[in-house]
Amino acid sequence: MNKKLLLAGLALALGAGVAQTAFAQVKPEILVKQRQAAMTLQGKYFGPLAGMAQGKVPYNAETVAMNAALLDALSRMPWDGFAPASKDASVKNAALPAVWSEPAKFQQAQDNFHKAVAALVAVSRGGDEAAQKAAIGGVGKTCGGCHQDFREKQ
Amino acid sequence: MNKKLLLAGLALALGAGVAQTAFAQVKPEILVKQRQAAMTLQGKYFGPLAGMAQGKVPYNAETVAMNAALLDALSRMPWDGFAPASKDASVKNAALPAVWSEPAKFQQAQDNFHKAVAALVAVSRGGDEAAQKAAIGGVGKTCGGCHQDFREKQ
Repeated sequence: MNKKLLLAGLALALGAGVAQTAFAQVKPEILVKQRQAAMTLQGKYFGPLAGMAQGKVPYNAETVAMNAALLDALSRMPWDGFAPASKDASVKNAALPAVWSEPAKFQQAQDNFHKAVAALVAVSRGGDEAAQKAAIGGVGKTCGGCHQDFREKQ
Repeated sequence: MNKKLLLAGLALALGAGVAQTAFAQVKPEILVKQRQAAMTLQGKYFGPLAGMAQGKVPYNAETVAMNAALLDALSRMPWDGFAPASKDASVKNAALPAVWSEPAKFQQAQDNFHKAVAALVAVSRGGDEAAQKAAIGGVGKTCGGCHQDFREKQ
């Protein structure tokens, strides 16, 4: 199987925007579960990069490139899980009311994250370790910035 | 932000193989949580396609292309979560012992899934509704085939 060829399809397919689930009426509890799943996987693939930027994990250029690319896909997945229907989900979750009361600010936080991931993807191909570590720090800052305002303190 | 440009990076970055988490010693419970998160999101993006193939959801070519592309990325994410360390995880999960006692068969089931997703990605760009629905059915078969042998009955 030619993985390069297949993944090139992602670029084409997703050029138009974010993905759609086609189901308008997903249960609030499922929306929460799905968005938490996306955050869990963002953590899976960002965690090692943060470790590298902090000098706690040995630097590995291939891992930076791969994980950055997967983060690019994952960064598109959580947001429709914050649909208004999810506001009163009966399952435990850490979303603060500001997610729904300050939609423009929440959107801005998402945009900041996307831009930071984009910057990381861009430098992840070049092999410049210092630039990559700086970009990883930039992504971490946007994660934290969004969590600061829109997620309950853990 | 140019989404096409960014996602083209995924093709380049992932050409070499599956992603690495760089941490060799992730806790078994975290491995389970991460692999379940990947399955949850596969369900999120495959569900609507299955609905289309079954005529329960209106066909939408753009959704097929987008979700197929995201499934291509997601299809890479669960497998390292079945690392031997996860075998005795103390959290509820549905993995059957065959995951670890029949590794070659489990690998084959993964390969079947990848091939089916690849076939779906390939036709998802062409706009041939019948071919897309057939390919969606092919993916569903490989999901079910793996669950049949390697996941407890739900």
